[in-house]
Amino acid sequence: MNTATLGFRAPIRDSIEAIARAGFGAIAPWRRELAGEDVTAVARAIRDAGLGVSGYCRSTDIPAATPDAFRAGLDLNRWAIDEAATLGAACFVMVVGGMPEGSRDLPGAREQVREGIAVLAEHARGAGVRLALEPLHPMYAADRACLNTLEQALDLCTALEPAHDGAPTLGVAVDVYHVWWDPNLFRDIARAGADRRLLAFHVCDWRRETRDMLNDRGMMGDGVIDIPAIRAAVEGAGYDGAVEVEIFSAADWWLRPVEETLAVCAERFATVV
Amino acid sequence: MNTATLGFRAPIRDSIEAIARAGFGAIAPWRRELAGEDVTAVARAIRDAGLGVSGYCRSTDIPAATPDAFRAGLDLNRWAIDEAATLGAACFVMVVGGMPEGSRDLPGAREQVREGIAVLAEHARGAGVRLALEPLHPMYAADRACLNTLEQALDLCTALEPAHDGAPTLGVAVDVYHVWWDPNLFRDIARAGADRRLLAFHVCDWRRETRDMLNDRGMMGDGVIDIPAIRAAVEGAGYDGAVEVEIFSAADWWLRPVEETLAVCAERFATVV
Repeated sequence: MNTATLGFRAPIRDSIEAIARAGFGAIAPWRRELAGEDVTAVARAIRDAGLGVSGYCRSTDIPAATPDAFRAGLDLNRWAIDEAATLGAACFVMVVGGMPEGSRDLPGAREQVREGIAVLAEHARGAGVRLALEPLHPMYAADRACLNTLEQALDLCTALEPAHDGAPTLGVAVDVYHVWWDPNLFRDIARAGADRRLLAFHVCDWRRETRDMLNDRGMMGDGVIDIPAIRAAVEGAGYDGAVEVEIFSAADWWLRPVEETLAVCAERFATVV
Repeated sequence: MNTATLGFRAPIRDSIEAIARAGFGAIAPWRRELAGEDVTAVARAIRDAGLGVSGYCRSTDIPAATPDAFRAGLDLNRWAIDEAATLGAACFVMVVGGMPEGSRDLPGAREQVREGIAVLAEHARGAGVRLALEPLHPMYAADRACLNTLEQALDLCTALEPAHDGAPTLGVAVDVYHVWWDPNLFRDIARAGADRRLLAFHVCDWRRETRDMLNDRGMMGDGVIDIPAIRAAVEGAGYDGAVEVEIFSAADWWLRPVEETLAVCAERFATVV
């Protein structure tokens, strides 16, 4: 269970308890929830609740308007990678950032991402943390992530880490919301699996009438995505990690009691995922 | 000038006059504007105003929930293709449709598109009309067009019309709004040009803070797209048709006087396109 699904309304310890009580096996917390917390103590609380950590969300944007800002962003990411190690997270989720404010240089932003991830991969390897590059839906290319297809993410993985021992530091997070439309989706899931790059799998749904580009994701089953087909492809390609629910829903699920949202997620898992 | 830029507020003859008066060289009208009109007379009015017809918008959705509805859609498209011929349009713009209401079968919708375009290509060839398959931004994959990348559109063109005499019936419309994010954009523009498939080129801009998924396109220069780079690629690949402005903008440009919108378009053409 990605804590974003709960709308960031409660302290992390409450979310840990609620998620464990609802019967889920793992949690994916956000950095904002750990600000001011003793990360080691949170890691212990998660373990004590019987939960794994399917991922740690998420990277600071890499592309920056100045070299100083670029370096500062990398420092924040190194810090977060160390926290991911403390948490024992299956991966650190890399939402790489879009173009710096005022820029029209998309290739330049992508080049900064390449440079930044090359640096961070070194650090992550030392920390024993795997980096899950998450291609975001193309509608976020300007302001959130200039990594927009699985193909692009995998090309980056193989360019920066061409050889590995079966457990590469660089891999991908497959979120059905971001990739469901991709004509090359099944080809690229297979490619990712063959190279052991499948590090995370996120589910939610795409509402046919999407009202907001950021916070109107649907509950599994309430949209148009053939989630079982994508899940079968991901698991058929060798992924055996958590199936993580991540639903940004300001107008619906975030307004409901946490227990209700968790119960509906569990029910949908049994029926439509 | 695509008449959508003017917000569909005036009768087609007024738009023809306004566009010609503003100094543009061609118009792309919509079917809704010709409903109830004598298309031959409209074609004459366009010619008399000194305008070309850069395209005719747009196809009826192809994917349908039933075989009857599928056939009925093709009939409407055949009718529209004949109108495009009467208008002397450079192409008929194919926005192919998304998934039928209630469907989660994206591959099925894409297969229907393939079947439908195969049929329509025959008709178009007979009518002397070229079909411009327009890949739409992936955020429209559910409800507007399941054709979402240039690569996918070109694969369809070459599958259905592998050989041609230099003037294929099937080609693509490149709209910067839909394709600017694509990591393979420049590769696929070159591919389209090499196979003479570039039939239309549309410009507008992507606002960094997009407020609405359908009707919040930006005026050229007000967004993040490097329009000159894409234009240079399209023209470098051999495209010598119109550069067409298509801006859906319910909260901004559609509220302004038509003359103002046209004047700003002309000014931006001279400075940022």
